[in-house]
Amino acid sequence: MPLTKAEISRLRSLQDKKVREAAGLYVVENAKVVAELIAAGHAFAELYATGEAGLPASAPEPVRVTEAELARISHFPTPSAVFAVGRMQRAELADGELAGGLTLALDGIQDPGNAGTLLRLADWFGCARVLLSPDSADLFSQKVINASMGSFARVRVVTTPLAPVLAAARAGGLPVLGADLAGESVHGLAALADAVLVIGSEGRGPSPAVRAAVSRWITIPRHGGAESLNAAVAAGIVLAALRRA
Amino acid sequence: MPLTKAEISRLRSLQDKKVREAAGLYVVENAKVVAELIAAGHAFAELYATGEAGLPASAPEPVRVTEAELARISHFPTPSAVFAVGRMQRAELADGELAGGLTLALDGIQDPGNAGTLLRLADWFGCARVLLSPDSADLFSQKVINASMGSFARVRVVTTPLAPVLAAARAGGLPVLGADLAGESVHGLAALADAVLVIGSEGRGPSPAVRAAVSRWITIPRHGGAESLNAAVAAGIVLAALRRA
Repeated sequence: MPLTKAEISRLRSLQDKKVREAAGLYVVENAKVVAELIAAGHAFAELYATGEAGLPASAPEPVRVTEAELARISHFPTPSAVFAVGRMQRAELADGELAGGLTLALDGIQDPGNAGTLLRLADWFGCARVLLSPDSADLFSQKVINASMGSFARVRVVTTPLAPVLAAARAGGLPVLGADLAGESVHGLAALADAVLVIGSEGRGPSPAVRAAVSRWITIPRHGGAESLNAAVAAGIVLAALRRA
Repeated sequence: MPLTKAEISRLRSLQDKKVREAAGLYVVENAKVVAELIAAGHAFAELYATGEAGLPASAPEPVRVTEAELARISHFPTPSAVFAVGRMQRAELADGELAGGLTLALDGIQDPGNAGTLLRLADWFGCARVLLSPDSADLFSQKVINASMGSFARVRVVTTPLAPVLAAARAGGLPVLGADLAGESVHGLAALADAVLVIGSEGRGPSPAVRAAVSRWITIPRHGGAESLNAAVAAGIVLAALRRA
């Protein structure tokens, strides 16, 4: 049964970020990512697909649409085979929550591809959560979700101003690590089960208020001429060291 | 003095990759990257800039152009303040060259942003060279050069079919490492001064012929749910281990 005009109009309106925010909805159209999210147990509120979507067996039955219908609601000039709508769930930090497990805190990571890659990294290394500063990329943008692959469904992400929660964690005795060009070498870092790792943007690093909450600066020794390391690469090297058996 | 019609037409024709290839030229328009390349000692064949380019003191005097002229020759809808033309230099591998130093071999890394990030990483960790399989991203594309930041000027890059040179290196006793989901843990890897690290594309990994040349598979232990690590992150973690003091 074709979508009604009203349905197309409503779905089409989700191209506007303000409309999505007001409705508390987000959209994912990459068929591979939608399949990974469903396989990871993620529940979408609405699912539209052509016959070509290749959804996993565990997927709920989608509303079948034509390519022409998808083209009208898609956010992209070249629509994929699926249009999934999810309900935003904004997690909040519980008191003292940071004391347990590894936390990756992203300060001003504005590039959505980098933010998504960092979510994937946090997932790989079993971080208990990711904190996202409010000036970082929007967790619910398609670019972040696509770059995270299925990790968007598996990693607990809390968007929150970082300085106060990191200062409180440090005051409570938790190691708050920051990656920087100067500091103790990552090669001497002992594994830590409970800690925070702060990663700032490549251009500017963490903000001054966040820097003040860092208790240990970690550096990755340089052997050549590059001025900086990619933020995700730096995070990966420090997380690997923290997980060293 | 304004550019002549013929000059504009010639520079404009460099928007076409075939024209650039035939002329052996490449173009960089990101003012920050051009400044970094010049600061790293890179010599461009031609340099055009408006008054706003912010070139380093060591830069040769550019041909002054207007924004309108730049708009006509630029490869982008929003031109920057500079248009630099370089002469492609294709490096060739010397006999036995791989025996000295660390080599990062990229097999089918097609995303130009990833390829550039990997060049930067090779630069950071002081790799003696990067090998690029012919089906990897084009070294001389603006996206690769921009993502490499200044590292394009500092890292020796050789585009070559990988399987024969890696097989020869392995036959000569050189450790040829590959990153994979199974293998010995990176945490147990001892530092190596002379070795090759092969990185394949995230989706497919190294090609079968290249896999056959790998002598040691290295894995980065997983603690969570992500199915793979970003190629640059995996390369960074293994290179950091190889450089452990």
